Amino acid sequence: MKRITARPENPHQAALLRLLRERARSRAELGDVAELSRSRLNLELDRLVELRLVEQAGLAASRGGRRSGMVRLAATMRFAGIDVGATSVDVAVTDGGLEVLGRASEPCDVRDGPVAVLDRATEMLAKLRDQGLFTQLHGAGIGVPGPVSFREGVPVAPPIMPGWDRYPVRETLGQELGCPVVVDNDVNIMALGELHAGLAKQVDDFLFVKIGTGIGCGIVVDGKIYRGVSGSAGDIGHIRVDDAGPICACGNAGCLEAYFGGAALAREATAAAERSPYLGERLRRTGTLTGEDVAAAAALGDAEAVRLIRDGGHRVGLVLAGLVSFFNPGLVIVAGGVARLGHLLLAEIRSVVYRRSLPLATGNLPIVLSELGDSAGVIGAARLCSDHVFSAP
Amino acid sequence: MKRITARPENPHQAALLRLLRERARSRAELGDVAELSRSRLNLELDRLVELRLVEQAGLAASRGGRRSGMVRLAATMRFAGIDVGATSVDVAVTDGGLEVLGRASEPCDVRDGPVAVLDRATEMLAKLRDQGLFTQLHGAGIGVPGPVSFREGVPVAPPIMPGWDRYPVRETLGQELGCPVVVDNDVNIMALGELHAGLAKQVDDFLFVKIGTGIGCGIVVDGKIYRGVSGSAGDIGHIRVDDAGPICACGNAGCLEAYFGGAALAREATAAAERSPYLGERLRRTGTLTGEDVAAAAALGDAEAVRLIRDGGHRVGLVLAGLVSFFNPGLVIVAGGVARLGHLLLAEIRSVVYRRSLPLATGNLPIVLSELGDSAGVIGAARLCSDHVFSAP
Repeated sequence: MKRITARPENPHQAALLRLLRERARSRAELGDVAELSRSRLNLELDRLVELRLVEQAGLAASRGGRRSGMVRLAATMRFAGIDVGATSVDVAVTDGGLEVLGRASEPCDVRDGPVAVLDRATEMLAKLRDQGLFTQLHGAGIGVPGPVSFREGVPVAPPIMPGWDRYPVRETLGQELGCPVVVDNDVNIMALGELHAGLAKQVDDFLFVKIGTGIGCGIVVDGKIYRGVSGSAGDIGHIRVDDAGPICACGNAGCLEAYFGGAALAREATAAAERSPYLGERLRRTGTLTGEDVAAAAALGDAEAVRLIRDGGHRVGLVLAGLVSFFNPGLVIVAGGVARLGHLLLAEIRSVVYRRSLPLATGNLPIVLSELGDSAGVIGAARLCSDHVFSAP
Repeated sequence: MKRITARPENPHQAALLRLLRERARSRAELGDVAELSRSRLNLELDRLVELRLVEQAGLAASRGGRRSGMVRLAATMRFAGIDVGATSVDVAVTDGGLEVLGRASEPCDVRDGPVAVLDRATEMLAKLRDQGLFTQLHGAGIGVPGPVSFREGVPVAPPIMPGWDRYPVRETLGQELGCPVVVDNDVNIMALGELHAGLAKQVDDFLFVKIGTGIGCGIVVDGKIYRGVSGSAGDIGHIRVDDAGPICACGNAGCLEAYFGGAALAREATAAAERSPYLGERLRRTGTLTGEDVAAAAALGDAEAVRLIRDGGHRVGLVLAGLVSFFNPGLVIVAGGVARLGHLLLAEIRSVVYRRSLPLATGNLPIVLSELGDSAGVIGAARLCSDHVFSAP
């Protein structure tokens, strides 16, 4: 897949590409919005056409005088989004406007290490290429389930990703795909997906809470991911619920994740199995219990499963209430495997946050379940890379 | 004090004023930094000179060719900062570069209401004017000890400010002073003061925690105050420490403020007085105990006072640990009346945050006491207004 694709050469070109990402526009409109003189605008557009990033698209409707030429992002422009989960890899290919043209999902254990997992992802992309979805990529974004140094493009001491610590993901994938690559953690790319195509489309400041194997939070400030000074912002799984709770893998007691991460929920469900006909039978049949089993049991009215979800939602609510008071977001989106526990979980989270946060912070605060589901990650990854490629050099 | 002062007319002029706020510069340097053509630069500068916002300042050292003219902010430019506390009013007058030229502080009860308090502040400014510090103001910033709608320039349901709810502070003060006025809460302006002149000068993302009558937090993201969608961001006094704690004025149990706000500390100190010779004697003599008394007792080695400070610091640390994991700041500054409890308090906060937050978030995280003290508020208020006046119309 190795061919070098062009990138904007200056801030004006980058700004024009971002405007065209929203939709095709006439030269007259572009000049107005970008505040460029006609001669400068045409100079930059001509260069973007030469670079094959932009193409002519006929004439616009008349605004009175001579009809202005329409321009749009090149029809061949393609971005890839890759979402590496703990047990799966999702990929998608989009056009320049980030519309998904094709996607694929395969089970894949992140513990197989970076070589195997990145190979798998590039193979999946190669299949999409062979289906004619693209000939070359202008950029790719990848999210991984652990902390990432965004600046360096490497995972940093990720707890559930053996072999990935400081592995050069950006460099390796960039060489393999022949395009710029941006690496971030999975929660941040999902939050970006919600910003681009989900419930957060009109919201500048929001929190995206993922409850799965781990518990993490994407923070969006002014329409951009806030990463903090060392890239660990949003790592809320180890916020203390109380001092009396179970000991967490981090060594402290009573962390949120020790109460309600994927492992904790499975443990609690197993302990509850002897009191629950549904969970008990399921455990005998499969030998293990997961969050999905708890959700299914609760849907059947199983009292133990309902209690587990209520208790977990209550604790997520206690932590979120503090974060809502602190951050005063315009929206909270709840997502992830455990979030599939659904509206019972959401109701409990809402009840605690609305009671424990300040009225001024919760007055107009929607707390909702994600509607994008699994596509949030790949869309967000493509968006992340598009933001990078369409920025000034 | 009513005279109308000029403001920049377009974004270029605003950008030039912000550059000149840092220091006087040559026209050549300004053109380079502001990326303006020579003719456009001279046009905008000439207009700023006409508006009496900028003045010529001789010739720069030669860069090889003809010597470039130096320009600076008008020497007559003045901003005022007003910091309304629960029991005091501080005012300062600065030049265009926000150097403090004069200041004053008087005891004043915020419960006397907005008319009396704002009258007092304008009288204090009038005295500074009569001393020859200024003839007119280009802008004034004011901080008040309660929630503020920044957009509307009014306090919103402030708990310790009877009579101030939705009082038109911006409008009233603007008419009185004859200049643009910006209103914010006291914690935000103190955080801005630290950003402008204190320990946060080189830090883009930091938290400023004020522990006084109430407990609040200023949040700075990318060098700007983050206020949240309804302006209540940073209101951390009602974050839950545990469920077993004292009932708070907000109706919930175990809020941080219910444990360690000014009132809580006074209550605890009174309860401890019978076991503490120092606090007991102080209580008999004055009839009340304050945070200052606890600090003085602790400095003398009083075991009860040391315990009160340790317990309070521990609880502040528990809340801060969560916020550090969530926000991953580059610096935490602790300030306010109770913060005068000093290094004993700081040591306890540090010990909890460094143990309970994620290593990635605390690796390079300094937690320090403010060095600006009382001037943080007035400097920050002047800076807030200067940012507003020096922004595009």
